[in-house]
Amino acid sequence: MNTAALKAEILKKKSFLCVGLDIDLEKVPAQFQNSPTALVDFSKAIIDATAPYAVAYKPNIAFFETYGVEGMAALKEVIDYLNQNHPEVFTIADAKRGDIGNTSTRYAKAYFETLGFDSITVAPYMGKDSVEPFLAFKDKYTILLALTSNPGSADFQRISSDGTALFEKVLATSKTWEGSEQLMYVVGATQADALQKIRGIIPDAFLLVPGVGAQGGSLEEVARHGLNENVGLLVNSSRGIIYASQGDDFAEAAATAAKNLQEQMALLLEQNNLL
Amino acid sequence: MNTAALKAEILKKKSFLCVGLDIDLEKVPAQFQNSPTALVDFSKAIIDATAPYAVAYKPNIAFFETYGVEGMAALKEVIDYLNQNHPEVFTIADAKRGDIGNTSTRYAKAYFETLGFDSITVAPYMGKDSVEPFLAFKDKYTILLALTSNPGSADFQRISSDGTALFEKVLATSKTWEGSEQLMYVVGATQADALQKIRGIIPDAFLLVPGVGAQGGSLEEVARHGLNENVGLLVNSSRGIIYASQGDDFAEAAATAAKNLQEQMALLLEQNNLL
Repeated sequence: MNTAALKAEILKKKSFLCVGLDIDLEKVPAQFQNSPTALVDFSKAIIDATAPYAVAYKPNIAFFETYGVEGMAALKEVIDYLNQNHPEVFTIADAKRGDIGNTSTRYAKAYFETLGFDSITVAPYMGKDSVEPFLAFKDKYTILLALTSNPGSADFQRISSDGTALFEKVLATSKTWEGSEQLMYVVGATQADALQKIRGIIPDAFLLVPGVGAQGGSLEEVARHGLNENVGLLVNSSRGIIYASQGDDFAEAAATAAKNLQEQMALLLEQNNLL
Repeated sequence: MNTAALKAEILKKKSFLCVGLDIDLEKVPAQFQNSPTALVDFSKAIIDATAPYAVAYKPNIAFFETYGVEGMAALKEVIDYLNQNHPEVFTIADAKRGDIGNTSTRYAKAYFETLGFDSITVAPYMGKDSVEPFLAFKDKYTILLALTSNPGSADFQRISSDGTALFEKVLATSKTWEGSEQLMYVVGATQADALQKIRGIIPDAFLLVPGVGAQGGSLEEVARHGLNENVGLLVNSSRGIIYASQGDDFAEAAATAAKNLQEQMALLLEQNNLL
């Protein structure tokens, strides 16, 4: 799936919502607890309930990998379900991988080919030859960590030299890499002050924005600084949707939470003359 | 396994060799090709052949993960084999993970508990709250990327502000984190010029050093600047050992390559009055 198809889907659903599948088995409704297929069953129920309002899904790989072989089998079932039953959505492996050349190629194959995701999140610390191997895969996208939403983002990402913060260098440098048109960027919603600056460096790229809701970021702020003429935004919500209720009505509650965000997004798209 | 036990093993084997299991199924000897159990069988053969000369093993997770569920099952077999048949060696999951708090905890559980590794490599870009969750696991070690051996290490790791390079800030800052006594660091052998500076910042920590051999680093240089009173070094070799021969004599050739490095290491340990 390419960004033109993603944009078309955004305009059709009037939504730039990404649903984060951070499935914590201690937080799922009682009916799923102690079930060996809980990861898959709960994910499928959330996907079906929210698909009218979401254009992207982002399984958090750690929450599957933590269960070893069984977890990876569950992840495969979830991505297969997305590709078969909701082929119109954009899929993101939130894996934050990154290693030297031939190793990055193996990670890219794992997520783009073996599993069949449209995109993967990647950490930039090791530089050009750790990211370009991901960009060599046609019609696949690499979502580079730029400025994350956690407190630790201040430790290194905001270190400044010659007036330029590390995350700005990551953005500017990554534009020079082979295949950079397949780059997207993670920018935390808790860092809305930086969004305008970020858009100045990468006006065209899609931004994946976590941190709206539970972590305190404002959707209006993100839209004001982040939207571009191709929308260029995916805003992620995880806990606010998947744990909207932990009772029997969890799917309805998830749908309602997703719909609420979709309606706010529709308004923002309209206000910005994008519909 | 803790660092005191690791040091004892180093002195016993007179070796600080780590064997990197970057198992490329296109490069394994013909007898393993087209076999569904090649990853496991080849790994076991290499481990058994080299165990007299090596104190650590480092499966490269990407080379397993690229095969999806089957790859993860193979990884589980390899780490179980190491823990059961060679409990004296230090095991490293070369995974380069790192994410916000509760996600990092999931990755730590995956590698420390579900799989049973002694340590994992972690990327520092997301800062303190992405690394401390790994450090919360007792007698487990987190090997933080500091200065890597690839060309792309120049892109961000060597960016300087106020005369201090990013990798030096990573080293200095990480010392302040809760559980920092369980930190080790990846420092590429191709960056021997920086090793002395690095030892000034972290005199006591173990360094995991890739890049000797195939990537051009010098063992003597690494030992000169990297050894400390507790040895404090693990030098990794992957291709030079596991593909020493691609014929029927691959295991013998791997043993010989490992023994050659061990003998050089024994001499360096002796010259530095560590034996």
